[in-house]
Amino acid sequence: MTRPSVPTVTEDRTMTQARRDRLRALAATRDLDAILVTNLVNVRYLTGFTGSNAALLVGSRGADVLATDGRYTTQAGAQAPDLDLLIDRSCATALATTAGRTGAVRLGYESHVVTVDGLAGLQAAMASAVPAGELRSIGLIVETLRSIKDAGEIEALREACAIADRALASLIASGGLRAGRSEREVGRDLDNRMLSLGAEAVSFETIVAAGANSAIPHHRPSAALLSVGDFVKLDFGATFGGYHSDMTRTFVLGRPVDWQTEIYDLVATAQRLGREALKVGASVVDVDAAARTPIVDAGHGPDFSHGLGHGVGLEIHEAPALSALGAGKLQADMAVTVEPGVYLVGRGGVRIEDTLVVGTDGPDLLTMTSKELVAL
Amino acid sequence: MTRPSVPTVTEDRTMTQARRDRLRALAATRDLDAILVTNLVNVRYLTGFTGSNAALLVGSRGADVLATDGRYTTQAGAQAPDLDLLIDRSCATALATTAGRTGAVRLGYESHVVTVDGLAGLQAAMASAVPAGELRSIGLIVETLRSIKDAGEIEALREACAIADRALASLIASGGLRAGRSEREVGRDLDNRMLSLGAEAVSFETIVAAGANSAIPHHRPSAALLSVGDFVKLDFGATFGGYHSDMTRTFVLGRPVDWQTEIYDLVATAQRLGREALKVGASVVDVDAAARTPIVDAGHGPDFSHGLGHGVGLEIHEAPALSALGAGKLQADMAVTVEPGVYLVGRGGVRIEDTLVVGTDGPDLLTMTSKELVAL
Repeated sequence: MTRPSVPTVTEDRTMTQARRDRLRALAATRDLDAILVTNLVNVRYLTGFTGSNAALLVGSRGADVLATDGRYTTQAGAQAPDLDLLIDRSCATALATTAGRTGAVRLGYESHVVTVDGLAGLQAAMASAVPAGELRSIGLIVETLRSIKDAGEIEALREACAIADRALASLIASGGLRAGRSEREVGRDLDNRMLSLGAEAVSFETIVAAGANSAIPHHRPSAALLSVGDFVKLDFGATFGGYHSDMTRTFVLGRPVDWQTEIYDLVATAQRLGREALKVGASVVDVDAAARTPIVDAGHGPDFSHGLGHGVGLEIHEAPALSALGAGKLQADMAVTVEPGVYLVGRGGVRIEDTLVVGTDGPDLLTMTSKELVAL
Repeated sequence: MTRPSVPTVTEDRTMTQARRDRLRALAATRDLDAILVTNLVNVRYLTGFTGSNAALLVGSRGADVLATDGRYTTQAGAQAPDLDLLIDRSCATALATTAGRTGAVRLGYESHVVTVDGLAGLQAAMASAVPAGELRSIGLIVETLRSIKDAGEIEALREACAIADRALASLIASGGLRAGRSEREVGRDLDNRMLSLGAEAVSFETIVAAGANSAIPHHRPSAALLSVGDFVKLDFGATFGGYHSDMTRTFVLGRPVDWQTEIYDLVATAQRLGREALKVGASVVDVDAAARTPIVDAGHGPDFSHGLGHGVGLEIHEAPALSALGAGKLQADMAVTVEPGVYLVGRGGVRIEDTLVVGTDGPDLLTMTSKELVAL
C-alpha cells in the first residue's frame, strides 16, 4: 500500500501568510481593525491548522493569533508555527477579548457562521475589553478568496481526482461492478480502493444507485442488488491534502436498450456543452444554461432537477454555484464540477460529472475516466 | 452478511408525536405561539425525517409542519406521513412565513443553531406576514428532552453497542491487533467489521493509537506500526437506527511492564467508581469527581485532561456533560459514557470507556467487552 506524500499546500507558511495578507488588505478597505475568522474551513485555509476547535484573529497591522484548546497545542505548533497561539477552549470569545485588549474597536466577524448566541458572547467579550467595541459582518469574503485556487491547491485536487480515477478503474478491472452485488457492497469496495490508493478519506458518502434507484439524484447505497439491464450510477470522491474530488459515472450492466442510450447520449452532450462553456468571464447562469438547453429541448427539462455544478476545494460544495440561481462570473483557477443529469422516476437516471479548473486556455480536466457509455 | 432489522424508533408515529407534544407543552409555558426547530438532529428526533435540509414548525395547538426541499419529497412522506409537508428550499424562512400567516406572533427559535444572518432572514419572513411578529430563543429545550431516552432509543443504542462489541471481538479473534500492522490498517479493519455486522456507519473517525501515540487523547490513525510492548488504544463506535455507540479499550501487545499495569489498574478503578456513581439524582460534577479522585490521589490528576463522559444518542456528544464544568443531576434513562484516562506524554496512555444508561436500579451497561487488561 503506497501513499503519495501529502502536498505541502496547507503547511506552506508563505502560502497561508499570503492568504492572510489578502484578507488583511480587505479588512483595511472595510475600515476594520481586525477580523475574527470562526469558520473552521476558513481557519484551515488561512493557517494550515486542521484541529476541530479553532478561531483566528487577523489584525489590520499583522499580529495574527490562532486560538485552539489544550488538545491541539502540539498540532497547532507544528501546523502553524508562524502564528501566535492562544490556548483557550472558548476560542472565539477569547480572541474577541484579545482583539479589544490590543486596540481593535471595529472587529469583523462571519455572520453566516456565528450563531445568535455566539454573537452575544463575542459582544460581551469585546465590551469587557473595549466599551466602544463593535462587531461588523464581513460576509463571505474568505469563501470568495477560497474560490480561486493557487497552484498547490490545484495539485492537491488533481491528486484527489487521480485517486478516484484509479479506484474506479481498479473496481471495474476486478469485476467489482457486477449483477448480484448490493449497492452497499459496491460502495464499500470503491471506498476501500480509494483509501488504499492514498485517499485520506472519502469526499462524501459514496452514491451507488442501481436500476430505478439511479433516478434518485442523492440515493444512499442500500441492500438492493445490481441486476442485468440496470443503470448503475456512481458519485464519489477522495480527499487529498484536505481537497475533495467529485466525479459521477453511469454504467449499464449488459446491453443498453434504446431509452438508456438516448438519455445517456443526451446527458453526455449536455455535459460536454457545460464543460465547453467554462470560460473566464462567463456568467455562472450562462454556463448552467449551456448544458441545460439541450435537455430542455429534448423535453427532459423537469427531469434535470438540480444545478449544473459547484465549486470544490477544502469543502465538497463551495463557491461558485453553477446554477440558474447563482451569481457572478467565472474566474481563472476556480475549481468546479459540471454534472448534468436526467432522472426518469421509476426507470432510471444518468448523471455524468467531472471536476475541472477554469483557465484562460479552456478548462483543465482533473477527472480523467472515460465518459463513453460503458456496458459491463 | 446478516443485518438486524432497523428498530422503528424514529419511524414510530406515536413516539415522534409524543415528543412534539412534550415540546408543545413547553411552548405553552413560555407563552410562545409556535416553535421553529432548525437543528437537523432535533428535527429528526421530533419527526423521524433524516434528510439533510429541513425545519419543523410545532404549533401551540397542533398543525405541525415539516419543511424540506424537492429532493426529499418522497422520503419525507415515507418517514413522517403524519405531518403536513412544505416543499421549499429555504425551509426555515418559509416556515417563519407560514407561522406568521397562521396567526403566530411569538415564535420560538434555536438561538444556539440559527446564525446571525439566519435570524435576520427569519425576522424578515415573520415581518412579511405579521408586522408585530417576534422571535424568542427557546435555548436548548429540545436537546434537554433528547437527554432522556425512551425504550426504542435505548434498544437502538444497545444494538449499536453490541455491533461494536462483536466487531472488536472478531478483530481480536482474527489476530487483527498485532505488531507490524499500521494504526490505519487496524482502524479500517475494525470499521469494515462494524459495517459488515450491521452498522449504518461508524460513530466517528475510529481512534487507533499505538505506543507513545496512545498518550494523545484524540490521536488520528497514522501509518505508525504497532510494536511489541505498546499500549494500543481503540476508541470507536457504530451507529444503528441513527444512534451512536461509544467505547474505548486499551490493550498491551506482549507482556505488560510495571508502569503499564499500574496506570491500567488506576484507570480501571477510576472507571468502575465512575460507573458506580451513575445514580438517579447524582450531580454530574460529583460523578466526574468519583472517578477523578483516585487519579488525582495517585498524582496523575494533570494526566487526566478531559471530562469523565458525555451523553450519547442521535449525536455522539450530547447532553449531559459529566464534567467538573457540567451542571445538573442525572435522571433515569439518560445514556452516557464513562471514560477516564491517564496519558503519559512520550510513553503511552490508557482510556477505558463504556456506554451506559442511568436507571433507578443502577446503570445498564451497553458495551459488554471485558475491561480486564488483555495482553495480545
